[in-house]
Amino acid sequence: MSNPAGVSTKFDLSAYLHQRQEWVENALTAAVPVHYPERIYEAMRYSLLGSGKRLRPIFCLASCELAGGTVAMALPTACALEMVHTMSLIHDDLPAMDNDDYRRGRLTNHKIYGEAIAILSGDGLLAYAFEWLVRQTQGVKPEALLEVVARLGHAVAATGLVGGQVVDLESEGKPDVTVETLHFIHTHKTGALLEISVVSGAILAGGTQELIQALTHYARNVGLAFQIVDDILDITGTAAELGKTAGKDLQAQKVTYPSLWGIEESRRQANQLIQTAQDVLAPWGERAIPLQALAEFVVARSH
Amino acid sequence: MSNPAGVSTKFDLSAYLHQRQEWVENALTAAVPVHYPERIYEAMRYSLLGSGKRLRPIFCLASCELAGGTVAMALPTACALEMVHTMSLIHDDLPAMDNDDYRRGRLTNHKIYGEAIAILSGDGLLAYAFEWLVRQTQGVKPEALLEVVARLGHAVAATGLVGGQVVDLESEGKPDVTVETLHFIHTHKTGALLEISVVSGAILAGGTQELIQALTHYARNVGLAFQIVDDILDITGTAAELGKTAGKDLQAQKVTYPSLWGIEESRRQANQLIQTAQDVLAPWGERAIPLQALAEFVVARSH
Repeated sequence: MSNPAGVSTKFDLSAYLHQRQEWVENALTAAVPVHYPERIYEAMRYSLLGSGKRLRPIFCLASCELAGGTVAMALPTACALEMVHTMSLIHDDLPAMDNDDYRRGRLTNHKIYGEAIAILSGDGLLAYAFEWLVRQTQGVKPEALLEVVARLGHAVAATGLVGGQVVDLESEGKPDVTVETLHFIHTHKTGALLEISVVSGAILAGGTQELIQALTHYARNVGLAFQIVDDILDITGTAAELGKTAGKDLQAQKVTYPSLWGIEESRRQANQLIQTAQDVLAPWGERAIPLQALAEFVVARSH
Repeated sequence: MSNPAGVSTKFDLSAYLHQRQEWVENALTAAVPVHYPERIYEAMRYSLLGSGKRLRPIFCLASCELAGGTVAMALPTACALEMVHTMSLIHDDLPAMDNDDYRRGRLTNHKIYGEAIAILSGDGLLAYAFEWLVRQTQGVKPEALLEVVARLGHAVAATGLVGGQVVDLESEGKPDVTVETLHFIHTHKTGALLEISVVSGAILAGGTQELIQALTHYARNVGLAFQIVDDILDITGTAAELGKTAGKDLQAQKVTYPSLWGIEESRRQANQLIQTAQDVLAPWGERAIPLQALAEFVVARSH
């Protein structure tokens, strides 16, 4: 079994993250150049570049390496994941949805470019994500690439983040939302994309079914922990720390894990989920260290 | 050279269209069942099913057969094309875009389900289109399927219909829009998806480069003719015939082909484009008859 405490001292997560954030940033910058009509490319770049932790791309790169693949092999898919994630943020922030003025510490896309361009930026990023990963990926079996395309579609469609956002919107202002509904929202709205982020890297590298199952388990635990921590931060964080308006969930009367369990129990649950996620990857020994450290990083934000 | 007049008497286009519309309708109905959260599935079905000529799917099926493939081989891609087309209609109709209350003779998606669900329905259909065509297509080489995925993404992204819609929005209310700009709008907003509709069938069937080039030429001519006819109908048609608000272009001060060329010259240009499209496919003899008849059908609407 892995020893997360030991891991942290040997493995330089900060350097690891920094390196990969730079690779992803450079790849994304190259992926979306500015052409005519400039406004739409600028709008996509505004939301896509220059901010964000790039967690989904990094999960993808890490799982590809764990499965014996290379960073280069997974980089186009990693970028596609960030494009899709950015689409979901742009659309979620729209006045008709969550009506958010700030995101990652900056004005939201529609506040700068208007609603029409914001909607189209999202559409453009979503469609382009599929083109980009198919055109740019090299050294991967076509069947594996098709599997990634299908899973990415599934993670975004009504079976994934779209479905999660629908239930989230329907639950707003309802104080009697059950924990099952809350769970549905999070496993779909954020969990589904996180899962394909983690699993896609291993699929590209031709990982075994056993590894893909373990990574699925890992991703589900990390995804839920991630959401719990997000909910905690919404209560305990400041706008400056969050880069978005704090207390939005409370204002919107959203049911959250801390509102159901309290902050302390929520933290305990998040830690437990992360521990399980790390244990699941223990059979892969040293190669699992980056993903184990990443899991810890996700909850560390809440302390 | 083909003889379109002769074609019409021998080939029963009406029966051909009816048969394929039914296949597509049945496949689409099966493709989008209703699950929890029901509202999003109902909203997607509302716009996807029960109306529309299914021209894009039928172009795809016809080009697959022309290239020696089967209808079954192309049906999932045909459905994906209609899902993507429907997404673009739902989003274009939004208040932030063209602000249309009616489409295909019925209330637009957001008038029934609200803006948030309309945006999400489009997102869901777009993502699902990719999943559906990858998961359901059988008997096609994976490389061919990847080519279709990449081209479909390209046709929808800022390089395609999203870019066309952006320039369309930017041109609204400007009386000095050039014919080049008008051409950009149409080749991107409607032309790009029409082109992949026609070309994808042949790609799936493993068609030759020569055929794919001819189909590209065919599609560009038909796409432009289609748009010219649409512009004419906006002036000469009634709301009942159009299934949407008539005279919207005039109201919005949109530059159109008839406003640049007059109605008669626009009709002549459309007919010329269709003639060229038919001639391009003449080397494929009898197998090209359905696509040649379809080309004629596109302009026949304007008479």
